[in-house]
Amino acid sequence: MKAKIYVTLKSGVLDPQGQAVGRTLAKLGFDGVGEVRIGKYVEIDMHGQDAGKARTEVAKMCEELIANTVIENYRIEIDEAK
Amino acid sequence: MKAKIYVTLKSGVLDPQGQAVGRTLAKLGFDGVGEVRIGKYVEIDMHGQDAGKARTEVAKMCEELIANTVIENYRIEIDEAK
Repeated sequence: MKAKIYVTLKSGVLDPQGQAVGRTLAKLGFDGVGEVRIGKYVEIDMHGQDAGKARTEVAKMCEELIANTVIENYRIEIDEAK
Repeated sequence: MKAKIYVTLKSGVLDPQGQAVGRTLAKLGFDGVGEVRIGKYVEIDMHGQDAGKARTEVAKMCEELIANTVIENYRIEIDEAK
C-alpha cells in the first residue's frame, strides 16, 4: 500500500518561497492570485502491514523525520489499492 | 476558492532526496518501507473566478512556473468551499 503525506507550514509561519511564487505569478500576468503556500508531498511504499498499523508507523515517521512539527503540520492518507 | 497542486517527479526520474529519506527511515528502525518519492504541494488562494476558469488558469501556472514538465507531473484540485 502507499502512504501519502502532506506537509504544510502552520498558519502564521512566514513562507518566503510561496511569496516569491505569488509575486512571480503576478508578474507573469495571472490575476486574482492571493496567498501562495508551498509544502511537501511525500509518497512512501509500505510493505506487509494493515492500514491502521501503517498509519501509526507513518505518523511516527512524520514526528521523527519528515515534518518539523514546530512549524509544520502533516496529514496522512493511506491508499490500500496501491 | 483554493487551488491545490501536487507536483511529483515522473516515474523513472531519480529522486535522491527521497532515497535519503528512505535510508534514514530504515536507520531509524522503520521496517517495511519501500520506495520514497518527494514532491511539492502548493496551495493558491484564487479570487473571483469560477472553478472551471480557475482550473485552466492554474494549469497554465503549472506549465509556466510551478512544475518542470520535463521531469515532473502535476495534479490540480479546486476546492470551492475555501
